[in-house]
Order: sequence, then C-alpha cells, then structure tokens
Amino acid sequence: MAVLVNGVKHDEISVHDRGLAYGDGVFRTLRVESGTAQCWDWHFRKLHDDCTAIGIICPDRIVLDAEVAELAGDHRDTLIKIIVTRGTGERGYAPPRNPGATRILLTAPLPVYPERNYDFGICARICSLRLAFQPRLAGIKHLNRLENVLARAEWDDAEIAEGLLQDADGNVVGATMSNLLMVEQGALITPDLTRCGVAGVQRARVIQAAAQHHMPVKVESIALDRMLRADELILINSGFGAWQIRRIGEVRWRSGGYIGTIRRWLSDQG
Amino acid sequence: MAVLVNGVKHDEISVHDRGLAYGDGVFRTLRVESGTAQCWDWHFRKLHDDCTAIGIICPDRIVLDAEVAELAGDHRDTLIKIIVTRGTGERGYAPPRNPGATRILLTAPLPVYPERNYDFGICARICSLRLAFQPRLAGIKHLNRLENVLARAEWDDAEIAEGLLQDADGNVVGATMSNLLMVEQGALITPDLTRCGVAGVQRARVIQAAAQHHMPVKVESIALDRMLRADELILINSGFGAWQIRRIGEVRWRSGGYIGTIRRWLSDQG
Repeated sequence: MAVLVNGVKHDEISVHDRGLAYGDGVFRTLRVESGTAQCWDWHFRKLHDDCTAIGIICPDRIVLDAEVAELAGDHRDTLIKIIVTRGTGERGYAPPRNPGATRILLTAPLPVYPERNYDFGICARICSLRLAFQPRLAGIKHLNRLENVLARAEWDDAEIAEGLLQDADGNVVGATMSNLLMVEQGALITPDLTRCGVAGVQRARVIQAAAQHHMPVKVESIALDRMLRADELILINSGFGAWQIRRIGEVRWRSGGYIGTIRRWLSDQG
Repeated sequence: MAVLVNGVKHDEISVHDRGLAYGDGVFRTLRVESGTAQCWDWHFRKLHDDCTAIGIICPDRIVLDAEVAELAGDHRDTLIKIIVTRGTGERGYAPPRNPGATRILLTAPLPVYPERNYDFGICARICSLRLAFQPRLAGIKHLNRLENVLARAEWDDAEIAEGLLQDADGNVVGATMSNLLMVEQGALITPDLTRCGVAGVQRARVIQAAAQHHMPVKVESIALDRMLRADELILINSGFGAWQIRRIGEVRWRSGGYIGTIRRWLSDQG
C-alpha cells in the first residue's frame, strides 16, 4: 500500500487537519486496472463538484493527474482512494482564511468478492437506520459518514452483501456503499438524491448511457413497498461494478434482463 | 501546543484512521485552569456515553486521567481537546472486528474573547443552514460536524459572536459551538436535543444545578418566534462559559437577571 499526502510519500496527517476534526472534506474511490485509472475524468469532475459544494478549493487537475498516474504506474491493479480536506487551520468551526486543502491519495488491494455475486446476484437487507434529510449535503461524498458506519454495523452475516438505506420518510435512497437502480415495466429508475444519499459516479454514467441508448431513466422517490415489487434491482459502485439483488428477506427475484446491459455500459470506458 | 496520540508525544495520525475516513469518533473540549482540568468528571462521563452510543470502546478512565494530568501539568492554563476514534481498520464502513480506539489529546491556548462579551453580552445571528433530524446521532458530540462548519462559514463579521441553528422544522436547537438557555416568565428552558444538536456538558450542569436550586427547567422544542420573544437568552459552553445574547438582527434584549446566576452555577466546580 502506498500513500501520498500532498504529493509526499507519507502515511500520516496532522492531528490538526479539519478532515479529522470535523469530517471537513470529500473523497473518491476508484479502480486502477493494468495501470489505468478507470473513469478518471468522471471521478475528477465529481471530486471537483463536491469540493465546490462545501467551499473547498479542489486541487488542480494536473497535480492529481500526476499523483494518480504515479500510484497507478507503481501498482497497476489497485484501488485508489482520494481524500481532499479543507486542510489545517485555527481551532474552531470557522473555515481558515487562507485555506490550503490537504490531498491524500492511498492505494488498497482491489476488493475480492465472491464470483457468485456477479454470476448469480446477491442477498441484501433493509437497514433500520434512516438517513437524515440534509439537502445542503445531499449527493456529496463528504467525510461525514457515521450514518453509513452505523448502518453497516447492523449486520455481520457474510451472506448479506449490502444493506439498503431508507430516508426518514421510508423511501429507499440506495445502499451503504452503492447506488440503486430499479427496473419497473421496462423503465430504469434510480432514487432522487436531493435530500440525502450519495450520488455516485457510476450512477451518473448509467443515467448518461441510458439517454444515449434511448432508454428512459427516471429519478424519483421510491417507497420501500414499491421497490420490493420491482422487476429487477441492481446495485452499482466504482469498486464492484454492478450486482443484481436476488433476495431481500423473503422476497426473491429471478435472474434479470438488465444486469448485463448495465454491466456493459459500465465497462465502456468513455 | 502539545499532542499525545495513544499516549505518545506525536502530532500525526495514520491516514487509515477511521476518524479521518468517516468522522468515526467523538470529541470533547475542556478548560484547564492553574493545572486543573475543569469539570473533568462530567467530560469523561460524556465522552464515555458518546463512545458507547456509536459502539466505540472508550479508553479507560485511568489512562485518560493520566494523560489529561500530564498535559494539564505542563501547560497549567490551556484548552485540551480529546478525540476518540474507532481506530484504524480494514477498508470499508464495517467496524473492524478487533477495534482499538485511537485517543488523541491536544492542547490549544485558552481562547481570548472580548471582555464586552462577558460584561455586556453578544450579538448573534440566525444561520440559514438547518440541522437535519437524525435521532440516532442527536446529542452526541461526534466528528461529523460539516453542518457546524457550513453554518459557521455563513458569516465573517467579528461583531457577531455566535450563530443560532434551527432544525428542519424551524425550532432553535442551539448555536454553532454552544447550547442555548432561554428565560421565559421566570422559567429556564433549553431546546430538546433528541432529534439533532449536541447536548453539551455545561447544559447538563445547568439542568442539574437548577434542580438543586429548585428552579424549574424545561427541555422542549423552541420555535424561532418564541425564542425572539424570550425575556433573556444565554449561550453556554466549556470554552467561554456563559454569554447573554443582547442582539439578534433588530431584536434587542436588556441586561438580564439570570446570566449572573448561570455563571455562578458554572463556576462551581462540583
């Protein structure tokens, strides 16, 4: 594993960093395959947008390009996590006057999931933790992730690959580490993320690909009952790609017709 | 400034610490005066309760006693911030199987506020950011503090000492770094913090002291309009003690009769 903190090989950061103090930052996780960072354009754009949304000046593209290339060149097949924080500053919540973001890039082995997750599909559960409505932070992949931690801590059964998250009104928002796609009467639907949740890069790519292939995609609130009656449910993220949900509790789904399409779209490096 | 990370003088932590990755931890800020940590019993109890609330095993009292005493002995008059995180672990939201909390103690100079804040009172504002309802995390002083950061970033006017925070329904919850006490027809009222906000140690001390002095205290939802009609408004925290609010926008308050009482209660080291 390698770590670059502001471009320097070093695996620690200051205890005064606002990323630690307040979760005052954002992050990305992306795959590197054969030395190439997958969907890097998308990831950089999302990192930039997320920084902007909370008033952090995003590191320059050229700087991140070089650092990602350095790690990707050394490790070839790896995950890279990029964290950008508001940097160190005076004590207190007020953002520092001369903010210098801290950028942290770290590699981790590509995650290994059971083949069955891809060939057959996964078993998921409904988490009891409900996501809070915070429109000011919704969609952003920021470092305030205690909700995800507490939701993921609800189960310790290796058979369950993911946990679905509802908002305070009982709408399904996504899962602890992935976004949800629902197939309903031939249409693709993904939850509205303007009040909570994380709007991942692969979700944005699917929405774009669907438009390109003239397949209707709707972004809307999805009540739990409605989701459980869907024709097909698919989870997506940058780490594992796409998995079909085959079982939630006593509800089971057959092998779906859309999972192959979604996987094909995601494997297009556009 | 001095820093102890797990008892060792060192001012950095691992980039793999979950405190940075997810804000997966809690914290305290307390005053040391003449070498004595103020309200240490209260702070330890709250730290312990907050750790327990999110499933972190709190460091032993005896260990923290020694580390607080070490910093307090060296610095005499200082702030100490204590951060406890879930420690480092494998990648992903799932809490590690053998969690070893990281404890970080750091000193900072005692904050210097204008004398006027104590003698006269302060000017406050109403923040536009609304706190999200998350009963699972309400009251806990955890490291997910982006709401406070964004609220505090709303103003840059040194005349305004604090910003009041409302919840999504428009009830006043407290302020960016302090708790609110409201005096209404001789009764003391403090906002209900079961759906959002931070339940500070000084608020708990005031509630206890009021009971001891047979003064009624109510904990309830306080709509903004009602707060603005209050007889007296007081903000409290462990850093500055107690300030009376004298002005919010065009609404002004006279010098109040309760601020002295609250300050006396808080200065009792019980």
